[in-house]
Amino acid sequence: MTDVGLLSPGAHRGAAATDDTAVLQALLDAEAAWVAAQAKAGLAPAAAAGSARAAARAEDYDAADLARRAEGGGNPVIPLLADYRRRLGQHDPDAVRLVHRGLTSQDVMDTAMMLVVRRAAEPLARDLRATQDALARLAEEHRGTVQAARTLTQHALPTTFGLKAAGWLAGLQDLEEDLAELARPPLALGGAAGTLAGTVALFPDAPDAAQRALDLAGAWAGELGLELPPHVWHTTRRPVLRAAHAFAAVCAALGRIANDVLLLSRPELGELREPAAAGRGVSSAMPQKQNPVLSVLLKRTALTAPQLVAQVHVAASAVVDERPDGAWHAEWPALRELARLAVAASSHAAELTAGLRVDASRMRAHLEASGPGVLAERISAALAPLLPPAADGSTGAQQVQAAVREHATDRQALGEALVRLAAGTTLPDGTPVDESTVAGLLEPTGYLGAHDLLIDRVLERHRRTAGSPPSTARPTPGAPA
Amino acid sequence: MTDVGLLSPGAHRGAAATDDTAVLQALLDAEAAWVAAQAKAGLAPAAAAGSARAAARAEDYDAADLARRAEGGGNPVIPLLADYRRRLGQHDPDAVRLVHRGLTSQDVMDTAMMLVVRRAAEPLARDLRATQDALARLAEEHRGTVQAARTLTQHALPTTFGLKAAGWLAGLQDLEEDLAELARPPLALGGAAGTLAGTVALFPDAPDAAQRALDLAGAWAGELGLELPPHVWHTTRRPVLRAAHAFAAVCAALGRIANDVLLLSRPELGELREPAAAGRGVSSAMPQKQNPVLSVLLKRTALTAPQLVAQVHVAASAVVDERPDGAWHAEWPALRELARLAVAASSHAAELTAGLRVDASRMRAHLEASGPGVLAERISAALAPLLPPAADGSTGAQQVQAAVREHATDRQALGEALVRLAAGTTLPDGTPVDESTVAGLLEPTGYLGAHDLLIDRVLERHRRTAGSPPSTARPTPGAPA
Amino acid sequence: MTDVGLLSPGAHRGAAATDDTAVLQALLDAEAAWVAAQAKAGLAPAAAAGSARAAARAEDYDAADLARRAEGGGNPVIPLLADYRRRLGQHDPDAVRLVHRGLTSQDVMDTAMMLVVRRAAEPLARDLRATQDALARLAEEHRGTVQAARTLTQHALPTTFGLKAAGWLAGLQDLEEDLAELARPPLALGGAAGTLAGTVALFPDAPDAAQRALDLAGAWAGELGLELPPHVWHTTRRPVLRAAHAFAAVCAALGRIANDVLLLSRPELGELREPAAAGRGVSSAMPQKQNPVLSVLLKRTALTAPQLVAQVHVAASAVVDERPDGAWHAEWPALRELARLAVAASSHAAELTAGLRVDASRMRAHLEASGPGVLAERISAALAPLLPPAADGSTGAQQVQAAVREHATDRQALGEALVRLAAGTTLPDGTPVDESTVAGLLEPTGYLGAHDLLIDRVLERHRRTAGSPPSTARPTPGAPA
Amino acid sequence: MTDVGLLSPGAHRGAAATDDTAVLQALLDAEAAWVAAQAKAGLAPAAAAGSARAAARAEDYDAADLARRAEGGGNPVIPLLADYRRRLGQHDPDAVRLVHRGLTSQDVMDTAMMLVVRRAAEPLARDLRATQDALARLAEEHRGTVQAARTLTQHALPTTFGLKAAGWLAGLQDLEEDLAELARPPLALGGAAGTLAGTVALFPDAPDAAQRALDLAGAWAGELGLELPPHVWHTTRRPVLRAAHAFAAVCAALGRIANDVLLLSRPELGELREPAAAGRGVSSAMPQKQNPVLSVLLKRTALTAPQLVAQVHVAASAVVDERPDGAWHAEWPALRELARLAVAASSHAAELTAGLRVDASRMRAHLEASGPGVLAERISAALAPLLPPAADGSTGAQQVQAAVREHATDRQALGEALVRLAAGTTLPDGTPVDESTVAGLLEPTGYLGAHDLLIDRVLERHRRTAGSPPSTARPTPGAPA
Repeated sequence: MTDVGLLSPGAHRGAAATDDTAVLQALLDAEAAWVAAQAKAGLAPAAAAGSARAAARAEDYDAADLARRAEGGGNPVIPLLADYRRRLGQHDPDAVRLVHRGLTSQDVMDTAMMLVVRRAAEPLARDLRATQDALARLAEEHRGTVQAARTLTQHALPTTFGLKAAGWLAGLQDLEEDLAELARPPLALGGAAGTLAGTVALFPDAPDAAQRALDLAGAWAGELGLELPPHVWHTTRRPVLRAAHAFAAVCAALGRIANDVLLLSRPELGELREPAAAGRGVSSAMPQKQNPVLSVLLKRTALTAPQLVAQVHVAASAVVDERPDGAWHAEWPALRELARLAVAASSHAAELTAGLRVDASRMRAHLEASGPGVLAERISAALAPLLPPAADGSTGAQQVQAAVREHATDRQALGEALVRLAAGTTLPDGTPVDESTVAGLLEPTGYLGAHDLLIDRVLERHRRTAGSPPSTARPTPGAPA
Repeated sequence: MTDVGLLSPGAHRGAAATDDTAVLQALLDAEAAWVAAQAKAGLAPAAAAGSARAAARAEDYDAADLARRAEGGGNPVIPLLADYRRRLGQHDPDAVRLVHRGLTSQDVMDTAMMLVVRRAAEPLARDLRATQDALARLAEEHRGTVQAARTLTQHALPTTFGLKAAGWLAGLQDLEEDLAELARPPLALGGAAGTLAGTVALFPDAPDAAQRALDLAGAWAGELGLELPPHVWHTTRRPVLRAAHAFAAVCAALGRIANDVLLLSRPELGELREPAAAGRGVSSAMPQKQNPVLSVLLKRTALTAPQLVAQVHVAASAVVDERPDGAWHAEWPALRELARLAVAASSHAAELTAGLRVDASRMRAHLEASGPGVLAERISAALAPLLPPAADGSTGAQQVQAAVREHATDRQALGEALVRLAAGTTLPDGTPVDESTVAGLLEPTGYLGAHDLLIDRVLERHRRTAGSPPSTARPTPGAPA
Repeated sequence: MTDVGLLSPGAHRGAAATDDTAVLQALLDAEAAWVAAQAKAGLAPAAAAGSARAAARAEDYDAADLARRAEGGGNPVIPLLADYRRRLGQHDPDAVRLVHRGLTSQDVMDTAMMLVVRRAAEPLARDLRATQDALARLAEEHRGTVQAARTLTQHALPTTFGLKAAGWLAGLQDLEEDLAELARPPLALGGAAGTLAGTVALFPDAPDAAQRALDLAGAWAGELGLELPPHVWHTTRRPVLRAAHAFAAVCAALGRIANDVLLLSRPELGELREPAAAGRGVSSAMPQKQNPVLSVLLKRTALTAPQLVAQVHVAASAVVDERPDGAWHAEWPALRELARLAVAASSHAAELTAGLRVDASRMRAHLEASGPGVLAERISAALAPLLPPAADGSTGAQQVQAAVREHATDRQALGEALVRLAAGTTLPDGTPVDESTVAGLLEPTGYLGAHDLLIDRVLERHRRTAGSPPSTARPTPGAPA
Repeated sequence: MTDVGLLSPGAHRGAAATDDTAVLQALLDAEAAWVAAQAKAGLAPAAAAGSARAAARAEDYDAADLARRAEGGGNPVIPLLADYRRRLGQHDPDAVRLVHRGLTSQDVMDTAMMLVVRRAAEPLARDLRATQDALARLAEEHRGTVQAARTLTQHALPTTFGLKAAGWLAGLQDLEEDLAELARPPLALGGAAGTLAGTVALFPDAPDAAQRALDLAGAWAGELGLELPPHVWHTTRRPVLRAAHAFAAVCAALGRIANDVLLLSRPELGELREPAAAGRGVSSAMPQKQNPVLSVLLKRTALTAPQLVAQVHVAASAVVDERPDGAWHAEWPALRELARLAVAASSHAAELTAGLRVDASRMRAHLEASGPGVLAERISAALAPLLPPAADGSTGAQQVQAAVREHATDRQALGEALVRLAAGTTLPDGTPVDESTVAGLLEPTGYLGAHDLLIDRVLERHRRTAGSPPSTARPTPGAPA
C-alpha cells in the first residue's frame, strides 16, 4: 500500500512530521530512548544508549513490510521490535535484552503518537506565528480601509478591512493555549495492564520499586521531550482528544479566513486577491483562469477536520477494559491526519496572508453602491426618538424605517426625506437637526463604532505574545534535524 | 509523503484496488480510454488508442512528484497531463493533441474515482460472497445449537446460534442492491462547466454535434466499463454518496458480526473462537495471549466508516457553482478510504467466518446456568390467563411473575411453585396443568419460536442468489489483470 | 423537558409528522394495529380492534410524563403500555389481555419509527414534487438566459441559467429511488429475541404456528401500511440506514440549491432573489436588510444532516447481541431529526423555487464583464491546431494562450490579435480564418455546448415521472387526516 | 412542535438548564440585563432595570409561538423582542426604548447560549463531584480486590478493581480545566457588524465613547455572571467549540465507565452490578430481567456526543462574512444537546457509582480461572535471562514461552515445568531458583506492579481538589432559584 498524497493536494507540506516515515521514526525513537532511560537509571551500560539510538534510523527499515506484518498483532510495534532487535543485535548483542523490557505495545504506540504531535507542533507554531504577523500588519495597514460588513450575505453596516483582519488574527490568538498544549504532550507508560508491573519488575529487590519505576518513566519522558502525566492514561484518552481539538481548531480558524478570501476574490467582488505564484491556480482546460488555490485547499481542510475530531471522540467513547478492542486502533489515523492537515494548512495560510492583495477602492465602491441603507441602524437610533407620532399613528421608528426603505439606495433623496421628517427637532445636546446633521449621519466613515479600539486590543495582544512564540518549543531531544 | 499503512493494520488487503498507485492507474486509464473513444468515433486514428494505452502504465510515472505538483491546480490531473503527454509524445507525437481535448480535470478525476469504486467492488463482492457462504453453512449446521439470546447485555430468551448466524447473513443480504450499484458506477463527463462545450466542439460542423458528444461519452463509458449517467453530475454528487453508503453499510454489517465474536470469545463466555493463524493475535509482552485480531480490526473499521460517510455528505452539502471551492476536494480521500476499508474488511470477514469455531456445549451451559428465568415470557403467557386473582388481589400475571422472580435460578423450585399456583386449572385445549405440563414449559428447546422457519427463509434467499454473484461483474475492460 | 423549536427556526414545518406527539401516535397506532391484526387472524374479537383504536389517540396521553418514565426501561413503550392498558380497560376490559402480547418493546419502537418515516415521506414527496415542477419551469424558461459558469469561484465558460436549474432538478431526480423506499418502510417484528417465540406461542396448538406467526406479522403490516421484511431486522439496521441516507440526500440536494441562491443573491451579484414575504428576512437592528432566510435555513439544514447520518452509522456499527446496550437508543433521535429536517427543507425549497426571481440582464452583464477570457478554451481548441510554431519556438497553443492572457478582458483587442495570429490559416472545413470567424469564436452564446440537449433530457425525465409521484403513496391506513 | 424527550430517555435530567424554556429564560435574562447595565452606566433610570427584569419571566411567553415566528428572521430574538417590548410597555412604557438598543440579534443569541452553558455547568459540576467522590471511595475500598486486567478482550495480567476505579476517576480529573471553563463563559457583544457601532452611538458626545461602550459590555457581563472576552467573537467561535469539547469529553469519560459496567455485569462475568431502583431495568416482555439501564443510557450518550462535536466544528469551519449564512444557526441545537446530554449523564453517573455493587469473589475467581498464563510476562522476565540456549537452539525466552503455552491453565504443571527448566540457575541476587521461587512467581497478587502508588496519586489529587469544586461556581446573578 502506497499513498503519496495524490488525493490530498498540498498535504505534502505536513508530511515530514507526520507521514509513515515520521511515525516509524517516532516508534524507533521511543524504543531507543527507553534503553537510554535504563542507562540513566543504572539498569543498562551507558554504551547501550548509543547503540540503541544508532539502530533506530527509520530509513534502515522496510516500512511497507512492517505495515503488512502489523496485521498479526493489530499494531506495528510487534513486527518493528523483531526488526529492531535484529538490527541492534548486529552491533551490540548485549543490548538486545534491554529493548522494550517492561513496556507493552501500547506504551510505545501512544508515546510515539505524542511524539508525532509534538514534532508537528513545531512547524505549525512557526507558520501560525508568521500568519499572525501578516494579519497584524494587514490590520494596522487597513485601519482606515472601509468595507461593507456583510451578515447573512447582505450588507449590514460599514466596517474596515483592518477590523476584519484583526478578527482573523483574534481567531488565532484564541488558540494560544491549545497550541501550548501541543508543544508538551505527555508520555504514555502503563505496561501491559496499566499497573506498571513490568517496569516495577526491573527493580526486583528495591523496596521502593514502584517509585523507581515512575522515576524511570520520568527519565524516558526526559529523553523524548515529553511530559510525565499525572496518571496512566491508557484508557482515558484526554491527551488524544486535546491534541485533536487543537489541530481541528486551527483548521477551522484558518478555514474561516479562506472562506472570506474565496468570497471576496470572486470576480464580482474583487476586494481581495490571492498571491500569485508560478504554476498555481492553473486549470487543465481554461488558460485564462487564476484559481485561488491556497484558499480552496484551506477550505478543503476545514471541511475535513470536523469528521476527524468526531473520529477520536467515537474512539474515546468506545474504550472498555484495560485496552479496547478496536477503539484504540481507530484513533491513530485520525490523529495523524489532523496533525498533517493542520501543519499543511498553517503553511498555506502563512503564504496566503503574507501575499494577500487588498483592493481598497473596490471595498469602498461596494459600500458606496450599497447606498445609505447600511446606515439605517444609525439613522434610526439618532432620529427615531426625536419624532412625535405621525398622523397615522406610526411611531418615530416606523417613520424613519419607512423613509429608509423608500430611499435605501439614494443618499440624496433619503437625506431630504429625513430633513423633512426631523424638521424642528433637536438632538439631546441641543443641536437642531438640519441638513448638515443629516449629512453627518449619512457618512459611512462616521459610523465605525469602536473599530479602532477593537483593532488596538487585538494588536496589543499580538505584541504581548511576540517575544514568546505560542508553543514554547524547548529544544527537542531526538528530533530529526 | 509516504504512507504505507503503518497506522491501519490490515488495510493492505484493500490496497491493490485503492492506493495511490491504483488511483494513478485509474486516472491514466481514463485519459487513455478517452483517446480510444475518439478513435471509435472516427475522430482519431485507430493506432492512437494503442499508443495512448501503452503510455498509460502507472509504474512509469513518479506518483510522489505528481502529488507534490498537484498543489498548484488543486488536483493531480494537471501535472499528470503534462507527464502523460510527454511520455506519449515520445512514441506517438501525433496522438498528443488528442489527449484530454474536450475534457476538464473534473471529468477525469470523477471518472477515475468511479473506476476505483468499480475495481474495489470486485474483491469486495467476492469476499462477501465467501462470507455469506460460510455464514449459510454455520446457520444450517447450528440450527439446533441452543444459545442464550441477550438483550441489553442480559439473557432474554433461548435462541439458536444458527439463527444468530442467519441474522449475520441477512445483514449482508440486505446490501445486495448496494453492492450491485457499486459494480456499475457512472462515468463523469460535463466539460469545464457542465455544458459539454469542449466535447461538442470536437464536431464543429455536425448539425447533431450535441448528440454526437453524448455518443462519444457513451463510447468512453464503454471503454471503461462504466455506465452513462442520465445527466451531468459534476454538482450533484449522488454517485459518490451512493458508493460511500454502500461501502459504509458493508463495514457496519461486518462490524456487527465482529462485535458478537469479540464478546462471545471473551474467556468468561468462550462460545466462539477466532480461527488461529501463525503470528496472529500475538502480544508484545504477553506470550500466553491469543487476541481476536480479525474481529478487532473489523471493529476498528466499523468505528471508522461512519465519519467517512459524514465526510462525503459534508462535501455534497457544500457544493456551489459549477465546481465547488473545496467541497469537491474534500470528498476524494473519504471515498477512497471507505473503499479500502470495505475491501479489507470483507477479506477479514471471509477469513473469520470460514474458520470460526463454535463451542455448542458452552452455549448450552450458559443458557442452563441462566435458570428458568429466561422462559419467564413463555410461562407468563401460558399460565397467567388461567389463574384467578389471589387473596391479596394480585392478578394471574403478578402471581406468575412473583414466582419467577423468587425462583429465577432454580428450575426445580420454580416448577413446584408453578404447579402449586396452577393446580386445578386447564389449558385452552383442555389439558390439566400438572407437573409434566410445567416441565414442558421449562424446557428451553421448546421455546425457540419460528427459529427454523426464519433460518429457512434466509437460507432460501441465499440459495436464490447463489448463481448470480451479488455484484454482477461483467468483464471489466481496462482492469489490471 | 419541553422543546418547541426555538433553536431550529423553520423546523416546525416538519413537526406534524415527526414531533413527540407524532411519535406517540405512531407508538399507539402500532399497539392498536396489533390488536386489530389479532382480530383479523381470529385471535381476538372483532370489536377489540375498534376499542384498541379508540384508546389510541395521542392527545389522551401525557407525553411528558411518559418521557420521564421512559428512563426506567430505557424506552417509552413500557410506560406507554401501562397507560394504554389502563385507558383501554376503562372501555373494553377484555381487550386488555390482547395488548402487546407476543411483542417486545423493540418491535413496537422500531415499527413506530418506520411509521414516522412513512408519514414524513408524504409531505416530503409532495413538496419535492412541487420543487421539481418549479425547477422544470425555470429550466425551460431560462434556456436562453446566458450566465457565467463558475468553477473554483472564478468564471469558467458561458452556460445558461436554464441548465443550472436543470442541474438542480437532476439532483432531485437522482433521489427518486430513495424516496420510493421512504414510502414503503418495513415492519419490525421479532419478539424478545428475534425468534418470534411470543408470537408463535399465540398459536399453541397449530402445527404451522411459525407460519401463522409470520402471517400475523403480515396482517400487522397491512394494518399499518408497512412492508413485511424478508427477515427480522432487530440487529441489522439497514431500514434505518436507508431512510437516513434518503433524508440526508434530500438535505444535501436542497442545500446545494440554497448555496447557489445565497451566492447569487449577494448584492454584488444580484442574479437571483428569494421571494419576499411579510416578516421574512428581517433584522433586529437593520431595517433596510432583506435576508435570504429560506436559503439560510436550507443551508443550516444541509450543514446539519451529515452528522445525523454519521450518528445512525455509529449506532449500526455498535450493534451487539440480540438488542444492543445503547446503540439502539442512539439511533432514534437522529432518524427523527433527519425526517424533520428533510420535510421542513422540502417545504422551504418549494417556496423558494416557486418564487425565485431571476435577473437575466445581470447574468448577461457579469458574463460580458468577464471579457473574452471565458472563451479561452474554445479559442484555443479552434485556433491552436492551425498555427505553426512561432519564431521563438512556442507552439500554437502557447501563442493563443499568450494572446488570451494579454487581452483577457478586451474583446476588441483580443479579436485583432487572434486575426493577426491566424492570418492565412483555414479551418478544417476550408473556411479561411478572418475577422468574422474570430468574431464568431468570441460570441459567448455560440459556445454553450450541448446545453439544450442536456436540459431536454432532464425535462423529459421530469415529464416521464410527472404522472407518478416519486413516492407512490398508496392510501395510508391509520394516518392522521 | 413539541418534543418532550420521548426519544431520549433520561435526558429530562438535563432539561431544567437546557430545554427551550431555559433557552427562552436565558434570552430574556440577556435582554433584561442589558437594560440593567444601561442603568448602571447612567444611560437609563434605575427603575428600568427592575421593570425589565419583571417582564422577563419565561413562563409569561408563548415559546411555541415564538419558535414558529423565529423562521422569519432565522432566529428567535426578533419575535421575542416584539413580545418583550409589548409586555414591558404595559408596566413601564418609558423603558421600552432602552430594550436591545445598540445590540443585534447575535449578541443576544450568543450571550444567551453562553448563559445556558454556564447554568448547565452547575448541576454538571455537582454531579461529577459526587461521581468522583464515589469513585475515590471505590478505589480506596478495593485496593486489594484483585481482578483480571483485560486487553483486546482477553485476560492480560492481574490488576485490582481499586486501580480500575482510580482510572475511571483519573478520566474525570483530566477534565478539571475544561469544567472550569464551562463555569465562566464569555459574553458576546459586537453589534450588527462587530464594530460595536450601535453601542458606541449610545454615547454620542463622549470623546471616549468606544471605551465607554466596552465598559458597558463589562457591566452587562457582570449582570449575567459572564466574562468579558478579549475580543468580539461573532466570527471566531472558540467559546462554542470549547464548551462543546468539554461537554463531549464528559460524555466520553462517563461512557467509558459505563462500557466497563455493561461488560462486567453480564451474567457470565457478574463482577459488577448496577444499583437497583423501583421500576428501573424492567422489560416489557421478560419479568425476570434486570437491565443495567443507567449504563445503557450513558453508553447511548457517549455514542451520541461525538457527532455533536463534529457539528459545532462543521459550523465553525463554515463561518464567512460578519455573520454566516447558516453556519451560525447550525451550531445552536448541537451545543444545547451536548449540554443536556452531559448534565443528564453526570446525574446518571452519580447514581450509578454511588450504588455500584462489586463482587470481589467473582473477580478473584475469574483471575484464578485464567490460570498462570496471565503471569507469563512476569515469568518470562524473571527466568528467560537465566536460561542457556536449549539443545535445539531455542533461547531462554522461547523455552519459557513454550512452557507457558503448554501449561497456561494449570498452575501446578507449569510450576513443575519451570522448576525443571531453571534447575541450577540463580536469580541476580544469588537466590537459587527452586520450587518456592517459582511458586512466588505464580502468585497473582505478587505481580500488581505500582498499583498502590498509582491509586495513591489519583486519590491524592482527588483530595487536593476536594475543597475547591471543579467549577468554582461563584454566585450566579439572574439564575433561576
